[in-house]
Amino acid sequence: MPRRDPVIVLFTDFGYAGPYVGQVKAVLAQQAPAVPVIDLMHDAPAFRPEPAAYLLAAAAGHLPADAVLVGVVDPGVGSERPALAIAAADGWLVGPDNGLLSVLAARRGARRGWRLPLPAGASASFHGRDLFAPVAAGLAVSGEPPAGSEPVQRWIGQDWPAERAEVIYLDGYGNAMTGLQADLMDPGAGLDVAGRRLPGARTFAERPVGTPFWYANSQGLVEVAANQASAAALLGLQVGTAVAVVR
Amino acid sequence: MPRRDPVIVLFTDFGYAGPYVGQVKAVLAQQAPAVPVIDLMHDAPAFRPEPAAYLLAAAAGHLPADAVLVGVVDPGVGSERPALAIAAADGWLVGPDNGLLSVLAARRGARRGWRLPLPAGASASFHGRDLFAPVAAGLAVSGEPPAGSEPVQRWIGQDWPAERAEVIYLDGYGNAMTGLQADLMDPGAGLDVAGRRLPGARTFAERPVGTPFWYANSQGLVEVAANQASAAALLGLQVGTAVAVVR
Amino acid sequence: MPRRDPVIVLFTDFGYAGPYVGQVKAVLAQQAPAVPVIDLMHDAPAFRPEPAAYLLAAAAGHLPADAVLVGVVDPGVGSERPALAIAAADGWLVGPDNGLLSVLAARRGARRGWRLPLPAGASASFHGRDLFAPVAAGLAVSGEPPAGSEPVQRWIGQDWPAERAEVIYLDGYGNAMTGLQADLMDPGAGLDVAGRRLPGARTFAERPVGTPFWYANSQGLVEVAANQASAAALLGLQVGTAVAVVR
Repeated sequence: MPRRDPVIVLFTDFGYAGPYVGQVKAVLAQQAPAVPVIDLMHDAPAFRPEPAAYLLAAAAGHLPADAVLVGVVDPGVGSERPALAIAAADGWLVGPDNGLLSVLAARRGARRGWRLPLPAGASASFHGRDLFAPVAAGLAVSGEPPAGSEPVQRWIGQDWPAERAEVIYLDGYGNAMTGLQADLMDPGAGLDVAGRRLPGARTFAERPVGTPFWYANSQGLVEVAANQASAAALLGLQVGTAVAVVR
Repeated sequence: MPRRDPVIVLFTDFGYAGPYVGQVKAVLAQQAPAVPVIDLMHDAPAFRPEPAAYLLAAAAGHLPADAVLVGVVDPGVGSERPALAIAAADGWLVGPDNGLLSVLAARRGARRGWRLPLPAGASASFHGRDLFAPVAAGLAVSGEPPAGSEPVQRWIGQDWPAERAEVIYLDGYGNAMTGLQADLMDPGAGLDVAGRRLPGARTFAERPVGTPFWYANSQGLVEVAANQASAAALLGLQVGTAVAVVR
Repeated sequence: MPRRDPVIVLFTDFGYAGPYVGQVKAVLAQQAPAVPVIDLMHDAPAFRPEPAAYLLAAAAGHLPADAVLVGVVDPGVGSERPALAIAAADGWLVGPDNGLLSVLAARRGARRGWRLPLPAGASASFHGRDLFAPVAAGLAVSGEPPAGSEPVQRWIGQDWPAERAEVIYLDGYGNAMTGLQADLMDPGAGLDVAGRRLPGARTFAERPVGTPFWYANSQGLVEVAANQASAAALLGLQVGTAVAVVR
């Protein structure tokens, strides 16, 4: 096996428009120049840390264990909400203390965190660039939280359940990911959503065109879909729409 | 000249929304950490390998000859369609055996391919991450197809023509790329499309505002455009709209 | 501090659709393989070098000082407009001579430029790939403009003012960046725009939901926004809408 550098992984709701992702990367390139950066996704549910936390926990399943993950879905930026770095298995999770990191932290059995100081001169509205990116660069290079960090063992979301029975993400085709873990579902179970009871399927082709169903998606989540149609449009789904398993 | 690493190039219909491109890159970062990755494009015609094959062949014209190109436009994912790696000049083409790679392979005179085994534990819906990315990483690092690959000399699309007389891509401005090669066009030829006969032009500024025409685009393709207007809207063009050369 | 390579930074109006950004990066990977590339943004105001110049000057504030910045907002591509490389502090600015680079060049006190020759075989419509990328690669690797470049001390936009009192960028949430520098604004000043006089605020939460205001954004610019609403929709703002400071 070739030598592997640590990587920094970005999960945000910034979108690709504007200079935001680019400026985060410019900070990383200056402060951790040898460390590769991977854009996991930048269209996490905007301003909604709760569904985003379950999406992050699922999407992170295929990351290197020693990655430094920066998560930013942060409606409280500029307020007094604390900032957090969590030591998780061989890697780190960095972001606001609003629950976003908590579901993934729990899956990795994380117990130790640090409350992060706000650097002098940080903007009020862009902590991704001014706070979280420098912290991530430091963790990738030195493995240490910044000077002035305070150890903590409690953070928001530690009491959240392992699953979330609602839609947490809509993709561009109108498929709706839920916060339910597919490996906990009985393949014969039904899924109630928007007044309909949906059967499960293994592949899209198993179901008639335009008929909604659920399946185990590539993220390990229960996903509501329809063959050659938009499940979101068919059923009126949004982030936050409730679902219920019928066993 | 500085030393040059091989590069891995991605051409897909995944879009930039969701965790899909990011997870492909996370696999590559783990399995081929020293190899740069280039996003050629992620908005290839969705689920349509035929037009996508001609777009790939054109867009790949400016890539390094030894690149490992991963192409994924794969409506048959999860079915029994085989997966393919083709040795093409100094590089490799990796993707589904549905014709996507065939036009580029033919331009490079490729003769040798390998049918790829599906790794244990691969998802049914995301072979880009679970099959093609690991194969590409192995090819970039070792130059060898994975154990269990079977040599093949036939793949879908070997009998496709060198050009395709239809619209193969619409860009954000409403310009319509066709599958016709610009260097085979007489500059004085006309192009029939959607009931209109369009003249050629060298630059947009040569033609009146709002008037459609064809020109040789930067990809080496015949493209239908209109000065300061959307040719797609003016003419009702879609991927698949037929065109005909009038010599 | 770890050793830091120079970086190449891209600022364009290409968007992420199509093969354009990818082909620029393929050229850079071939001609400057050890040099990291950062996408600062690819949704600069399309075909409008004037507002884009003020956006670039602001967004570049967090870049490494020795970066090679490629700026492409180039409605004159294919015409006779000259191409330019400007030595700016420890770095370089590369792009069309249409004013795009001039505001940033002035902030960095740049005095020396080179008019760039068009390489043989360059396309008429894609100088980003065929002219500016090779020049940037050469500057990053050797620090020298290409053979055949002519020294110049004058370029378009040297007489442009330091600020621009209009909307220069709309983000995906309907916030409107202006070309006014926030550090030159009195926090108690008002901003007249679209027939309204807007007060300043430090954070979004200070203002009632749906009420427009201005604030100092993370780019150092005066930005028009509304708490949980689209200022652009509320006020009918577009790139080019005039603003006026009321002191």
